Amino acid sequence: MLEDKNPQRTNLENLGEFGLIKHLTQHFELNQPSSLTGIGDDAAVLDFKDKKTIVSTDLLVEGVHFDLSYMPLKHLGYKSVMVNLSDVYAMNANATQITVSLAVSNRFPLEALEEFYAGVALACKTYDVDLVGGDTTSSAKGMLVSVVALGMADSDDLVYRKGAKPNDLLVVTGDLGGAYLGLQVLEREKEVFKVNPNSQPDLEPYSYIVERQLKPEARKDMVELLEKLAVKPTSMIDISDGLSSEILHLCEQSEVGCNLFEDKIPLDPTVISAAEEFKMDSTMIALSGGEDYELLFTIDQNDFDKIKGNPNLTVIGHMTSKEEGAHLVTRANTKIALTAQGWNSFAE
Amino acid sequence: MLEDKNPQRTNLENLGEFGLIKHLTQHFELNQPSSLTGIGDDAAVLDFKDKKTIVSTDLLVEGVHFDLSYMPLKHLGYKSVMVNLSDVYAMNANATQITVSLAVSNRFPLEALEEFYAGVALACKTYDVDLVGGDTTSSAKGMLVSVVALGMADSDDLVYRKGAKPNDLLVVTGDLGGAYLGLQVLEREKEVFKVNPNSQPDLEPYSYIVERQLKPEARKDMVELLEKLAVKPTSMIDISDGLSSEILHLCEQSEVGCNLFEDKIPLDPTVISAAEEFKMDSTMIALSGGEDYELLFTIDQNDFDKIKGNPNLTVIGHMTSKEEGAHLVTRANTKIALTAQGWNSFAE
Repeated sequence: MLEDKNPQRTNLENLGEFGLIKHLTQHFELNQPSSLTGIGDDAAVLDFKDKKTIVSTDLLVEGVHFDLSYMPLKHLGYKSVMVNLSDVYAMNANATQITVSLAVSNRFPLEALEEFYAGVALACKTYDVDLVGGDTTSSAKGMLVSVVALGMADSDDLVYRKGAKPNDLLVVTGDLGGAYLGLQVLEREKEVFKVNPNSQPDLEPYSYIVERQLKPEARKDMVELLEKLAVKPTSMIDISDGLSSEILHLCEQSEVGCNLFEDKIPLDPTVISAAEEFKMDSTMIALSGGEDYELLFTIDQNDFDKIKGNPNLTVIGHMTSKEEGAHLVTRANTKIALTAQGWNSFAE
Repeated sequence: MLEDKNPQRTNLENLGEFGLIKHLTQHFELNQPSSLTGIGDDAAVLDFKDKKTIVSTDLLVEGVHFDLSYMPLKHLGYKSVMVNLSDVYAMNANATQITVSLAVSNRFPLEALEEFYAGVALACKTYDVDLVGGDTTSSAKGMLVSVVALGMADSDDLVYRKGAKPNDLLVVTGDLGGAYLGLQVLEREKEVFKVNPNSQPDLEPYSYIVERQLKPEARKDMVELLEKLAVKPTSMIDISDGLSSEILHLCEQSEVGCNLFEDKIPLDPTVISAAEEFKMDSTMIALSGGEDYELLFTIDQNDFDKIKGNPNLTVIGHMTSKEEGAHLVTRANTKIALTAQGWNSFAE
């Protein structure tokens, strides 16, 4: 389907572990002033001076987090980095270094891993982060990616999940639900392909949501925008598991409640039409879909004028006292309790 | 065989991802002054002040790096941490934090993961490092562990693989070959067990080498000893892949050669007797066996008096000019070129 039929195959056994990692990482440069030494010693050495160091890590497993039948390896490399950078930006910090570890079975030729690292390299270049370490090993079955992202920030700039106060506004960047619906499109085309391998899928009408799934972008630009607008969020998290779950994290750690307004949730027109096509509720998808990698944060009401009218930022609700709980206020003006798996329409 | 038959089984599905990581890490405390916040936000926040930050990462895959039929999960947790701390100590730095990510199939009950984390907790306590992050996810098959270790050091204290000069002495801590022979013993008992599940293996005579395999210790104590002795190595590496391979790394990165003396290689009596039993050459095992996690370093000849007579430190050779190459000088006083897979006895 979307798979690149690479005619060249170099067996990994021919290279050995040291040869492999050297080969794959030879063109990566260190550009961050804080990267003193990278790959090639027992460990990397970094210098964050008087800044705080930020560390996040994520594991991506074939068959659980990605399906190589429609996820090109270059995209997988790119996305693996994004997932981690997103966590660093969600601290209102700047990402500076990553390490990438890979376990692959022998069915992967060297050229496949080169594709993967091309995606990593593109992510490094675009987001100005250095690859400083990693490990390549064999696996009995399938592919597994482990990425660690490091970043830095001044103490005063850091934004945690705790910190939201009642009456703070709840704001989200970009729009939601696209990544999940993109996955539905890809899954459907995979089934069609299984039945008729000669079918040519027309993904053009779905290009926005397919790209949201295959090539998400971490919102470094939004962290920079907030700095430019002189807005420091009171709490922040990235949206990896769906809006509902992330709101509950902010509420729990900030010890507040929340009213989320259904009619404020930003949805791309493609999301709305694809949701209709799949007979799914677009609000439900935004709440539970996940993988959008947008930022969700709270701001003091006094900062509203600073963000007002910015097309990238949407106020979707406000925080309340803890006792009031976390609710979705529907278009019909009824309140439904938010649950980690999206809202449970049978709860009330 | 050595497996703990735990009667209690709690299915992982019952917990969910957040519940699982919360449950597994709830008793971990932050003790390092540099650990500002740990698990529970998008990322951990650390403060290394004016120290340099050290980062190392390793991936351990079931069936490739460990076999759960004789590796108790608690030991696996401990060893996974050791492998990474060892890399940090090999920079002459102090390890301060780790992140642990785990991919497991549903065949593992919660109690198994608790065992694993008990080993991680013991390692954290013994080596005074904080667990500050991680990820738990499912895998299609088997178990996979990804650990990242962070540490810190003053610039002046850091020791790289490069830095060895001709005439420097080559020194190794502890003794070599035990971990590899321990593995041979465990593999043999596994085969016996397959044939006769009622057989009771007597591992007592092999307890030293079995422990070297199942519960290795990273040589933090040796880094502290070197500081006490006021010896700063000119280059250093940890022995994970075997003496030969590590010497070649030092030679390559320092652009020097080396004479390694066979009769100086430190071997425990258990290693010598087990090698005889397995009809293997003990020198070959020390050169190629790996997993000993001892430190290998070079010192200026002027520092010899400071380490002389210390039972933990053995001078096993000296560095030469690059042109002379890297050789093993045998007991019979012949020179054999070192290769990454140990010495090739057919090469000369």
